[in-house]
Amino acid sequence: MKIIGIDPGYAIVGWGVIDYSNTRFVTINYGAIVTPPNIDFSSRICMIYEQLSEILNAYKPDEMAIEKLFFSSNKKTGIDVAQARGVILLSAKHNGLSVSEYTPIQVKQSVVGYGRAEKKQVMAMTKRLLNLNKMPKLDDTADALAIAIAHAHSYSSRLLKLKEIK
Amino acid sequence: MKIIGIDPGYAIVGWGVIDYSNTRFVTINYGAIVTPPNIDFSSRICMIYEQLSEILNAYKPDEMAIEKLFFSSNKKTGIDVAQARGVILLSAKHNGLSVSEYTPIQVKQSVVGYGRAEKKQVMAMTKRLLNLNKMPKLDDTADALAIAIAHAHSYSSRLLKLKEIK
Repeated sequence: MKIIGIDPGYAIVGWGVIDYSNTRFVTINYGAIVTPPNIDFSSRICMIYEQLSEILNAYKPDEMAIEKLFFSSNKKTGIDVAQARGVILLSAKHNGLSVSEYTPIQVKQSVVGYGRAEKKQVMAMTKRLLNLNKMPKLDDTADALAIAIAHAHSYSSRLLKLKEIK
Repeated sequence: MKIIGIDPGYAIVGWGVIDYSNTRFVTINYGAIVTPPNIDFSSRICMIYEQLSEILNAYKPDEMAIEKLFFSSNKKTGIDVAQARGVILLSAKHNGLSVSEYTPIQVKQSVVGYGRAEKKQVMAMTKRLLNLNKMPKLDDTADALAIAIAHAHSYSSRLLKLKEIK
């Protein structure tokens, strides 16, 4: 199964496409959509929609996994991240992808086995599972890959449960 | 100038198209995009995108005016409204519309002349300015019309200032 993981944002959208079959990971590609701060907000989210649609069209993932949003201190930034996340969901829908959501704790739990794991532990395990020589420069991209792994594990355990029931 | 006013949401998006020229208003049409609660969220915002694009294509407004978002008590609902607002901005961008934002206080100030005006005062003035026999049933639609009026007044006062400078 080909999965695209997404770390949502309006300035940077991290993405990573991986393939997961028979408990083995293959890293297909990863990167980030970066929007310039000196254009209006509508143009930034339009850029996200267009570039993400191109990525989905190029790699044709089967499913999307994306970080679930919570609002904390900075409400203004939170609104803009949510607005950008809306166009990400639209792009997924327009490309026929189902979307699953994971909280940061679920991602840590799934990748490291411990929901309170530190960032560097998540990075180290992501690097190992995906057999990468080095981690991507941007944290957003690294996070997107970890989200994709979380979805693969979740899919795998659901499949296992189905087999046990049968 | 033809203006579309938008009251953003994910369950109901109120809209109203008015024409404003020489300090006179003409109401062109108004309504609401209503999405069913029993479909997934991505499908709801996709429906908003598609239906709004049809409305923009049918009435061809020159500009969009939309309520500015603030987050208060219900963060979950706030996130979903912001995600829906993202696809509304995308639809505006895809149809070449510039977007202006107004806070509820700015709308009240502009329509009634008093930022702390009560809802019924805003409704009464909207009805009068737009020469409506009765107000739309949904508050969301009525709010959208009030937002469009606020933009018309704002545009008008900017024009006046330009003339004074010349």
